[in-house]
Amino acid sequence: MRDRFADYITGLQDTIITALEQLDPNAPPFFRDRWDRPEGGYGISSVFSVPFSSTPATTILEKAGVNISVIHGSLPPAAVKQMRADHASLPYDPDSQESLPFFAAGLSLVIHPRNPHAPTVHANYRYFEVTHPSEPSKVLAWWFGGGSDLTPSYLYADDARHFHEKLKAACDAHGAALYTHFKVWCDEYFFIPHRGEARGIGGLFFDDLCDAPHKRIPDASLADRPWTPESIFAFVRAAGDAFLPSYLPILQRRASAESTDAQRRWQLLRRGRYVEFNLVHDRGTKFGLMTPGARIESILMSLPETARWEYRSEIGANAESEEGELLDVLRKPRAWA
Amino acid sequence: MRDRFADYITGLQDTIITALEQLDPNAPPFFRDRWDRPEGGYGISSVFSVPFSSTPATTILEKAGVNISVIHGSLPPAAVKQMRADHASLPYDPDSQESLPFFAAGLSLVIHPRNPHAPTVHANYRYFEVTHPSEPSKVLAWWFGGGSDLTPSYLYADDARHFHEKLKAACDAHGAALYTHFKVWCDEYFFIPHRGEARGIGGLFFDDLCDAPHKRIPDASLADRPWTPESIFAFVRAAGDAFLPSYLPILQRRASAESTDAQRRWQLLRRGRYVEFNLVHDRGTKFGLMTPGARIESILMSLPETARWEYRSEIGANAESEEGELLDVLRKPRAWA
Repeated sequence: MRDRFADYITGLQDTIITALEQLDPNAPPFFRDRWDRPEGGYGISSVFSVPFSSTPATTILEKAGVNISVIHGSLPPAAVKQMRADHASLPYDPDSQESLPFFAAGLSLVIHPRNPHAPTVHANYRYFEVTHPSEPSKVLAWWFGGGSDLTPSYLYADDARHFHEKLKAACDAHGAALYTHFKVWCDEYFFIPHRGEARGIGGLFFDDLCDAPHKRIPDASLADRPWTPESIFAFVRAAGDAFLPSYLPILQRRASAESTDAQRRWQLLRRGRYVEFNLVHDRGTKFGLMTPGARIESILMSLPETARWEYRSEIGANAESEEGELLDVLRKPRAWA
Repeated sequence: MRDRFADYITGLQDTIITALEQLDPNAPPFFRDRWDRPEGGYGISSVFSVPFSSTPATTILEKAGVNISVIHGSLPPAAVKQMRADHASLPYDPDSQESLPFFAAGLSLVIHPRNPHAPTVHANYRYFEVTHPSEPSKVLAWWFGGGSDLTPSYLYADDARHFHEKLKAACDAHGAALYTHFKVWCDEYFFIPHRGEARGIGGLFFDDLCDAPHKRIPDASLADRPWTPESIFAFVRAAGDAFLPSYLPILQRRASAESTDAQRRWQLLRRGRYVEFNLVHDRGTKFGLMTPGARIESILMSLPETARWEYRSEIGANAESEEGELLDVLRKPRAWA
C-alpha cells in the first residue's frame, strides 16, 4: 500500500499542477522543489508565486502550493499513546519507552486565486502506517485521511453546489454514509471559534479511516462505508480524482470577473481569517510547527501571499450586502448537496 | 492601588496618542472606542488606520493601537490554580470549586509605522489583583507586569542602543538587577521557535512582580529590585514614562527615509513573522482568544494592516545584505546597553 499510495499522490500532484499551468499559460510555472528528509523520506513542494511588485500582477493564481511528502521514522511513546485513542490495535504498554516505526505519505494543496470572486481551495489526502519495531513487515495500525474544502470571499451558490455535488458523487460510489458524515466533520473542523465563523463553505474532512468501526459512523453497515485497505484506498482515490472537476470549473468562471478595490479589500480581510484559522486552530499546522526538524516552509505554504487586518471593519456588517451574505453562511453552515 | 493604576494608564494612553497625532498632523486622528464589559469594567481601544486604497498612503503610521482596559470579574478555579505557581499567597484547596474575584488593568500598544526603516514597537503595563470572595477589601495576591520591545525590519544599531539605554535608565533608578534580568526575559519571551528567530531586538519583559521573591531574580537584595506596592508602581510608571522618549526619536528619524519596493517587500515579510509570533506563540494573545467573551477586536489590534508570506524567500539569505544583518541579530540577541 505504501508504494501504491505514494505513486497515486505523485501522479495526482503532477495532474493538478499541469492543469493549473495550462489554465494560465502566461503565468510563471510552479517551482518544483524536491527535498530529502535526513531522518528518512522525501517530499516535493511545488509552489506558485509571482515576484513582488507595487503594481498588482495579472496572473489567475496569487499563491499556491501542491505538495507531497513520503516519509518514515520513529514515533515517540507520547505520540503512540495519543494515536491509541483512535487505533486500539496499537500496542498498549503505559510504561513503554519504546518508539514505533511509522510511514506517512500525503498530498496537501492550497490555492489562493487573485480574483476576489474566485475561492481559495484546500485539499489533503494521506496514508499512515505504524509497524512492529522488530518485524518491519508487520503492520500494527494503518489509516487513511483527507478531504477538501472551499473558502470563497463572495458566495456563489452555484459554485458551492457544484463543489459539494462533485464531492458527494465521489463519496456515494464508496458508501452511502460517507458524504453526510464527512461534510459535517468538515464544518466542525474548519471553524474559527474566536470569530464564531467557519473558514469557508466546507467540503469533506475525514481521518482514521481503517478496517475498525469509526467513531463518526459508529453504526455503519457494509454498504455505508468502505471497510478494507483496498476499498478505502479506492474511496480516497475517488476523492482525490474529484478535486480538479470540483474546483477547476469554478476557478475558470470566476478568474476574470470584474472586481473593485472594495472587493479586493474584503478578500484580503478574509485572507486574514484564513491565517488566523491556520496558525491558531489548525491541528495539522500546530502539530507541524511543534515538531522538531519539521519543514516549516512546506507547512506554511498554506498561508496567502498577503493578508489584511482592520479593527472593527465595517465591511460585512450589513447583512444585506454581498459580504454580509457570506458571513451568514459562515455562521450557519448549509446543506449544498 | 486600583484607582491609581487606572488613572496612570488613562493618562499615559492620552499622552502617547497625543504625541503620535502631533507627529503627523495631516493623518487622521486615532479612533477612540470606549467599550463596556458586561461582566464588569470597561476599556478604551484607540486605533489608527487609513482607508484601504490600491495606491500606498503617505501617513507616518500604517496601523496602531493604544488600548487600556480596567476590568473585574471572577476567576475560575483552574485559573487560580495556574496562578498559584507564581503567587503562593493564593489560597490552596485542590477540591475547591470556588471562583475568586479579580481586578486587572493594563495599557497595551502596538505601533506599525509605514516606512520599512522605522521599527514596529509594542508595550504593555499591567496590574492584577485577586481578592477574598467574601471580604472585598482583603487582597489575597497582587502583582505588576509589563515591558516594551522593538521590532525593526532594518537594523540600526543607533536605534537599538537608544531604545535599550532609555529602558535601562528607567530600570536602574528602581533596582540594579532589573534591566539585566528583564532584558533576558524579553529575548526569551519574544522568540519564534519554529523560525529560530527572535521577533525583534528586545527590550524589557516582566511579570508577577510583587512583594515576594521573584523567580527571575531569586537572590535579589533590597537594592536590586523594588519590593513594595509603592516602589513597584513607581518602577512601572518609570518604564511607562520611558516609552515615548525611547521610541519617538527613532520614529522621527526613520519615518521619512527613502525606501525601495524591495525594502517594502522585506518589511511585509517581517510583518508575517510578527503575525506568526502573535498568533502561534504569544501567551497573552492565546489566552485572550481562548477566553469566552473576550474582546477579540482589541486583542487582535496588534496585527499589522498587511503581512506577506513567500515560500523560501531568498531575501535575507545573503548574510552580508542588510536583511541578512537583521536576521543575524534575531538569531543571536545582543547586549545594547
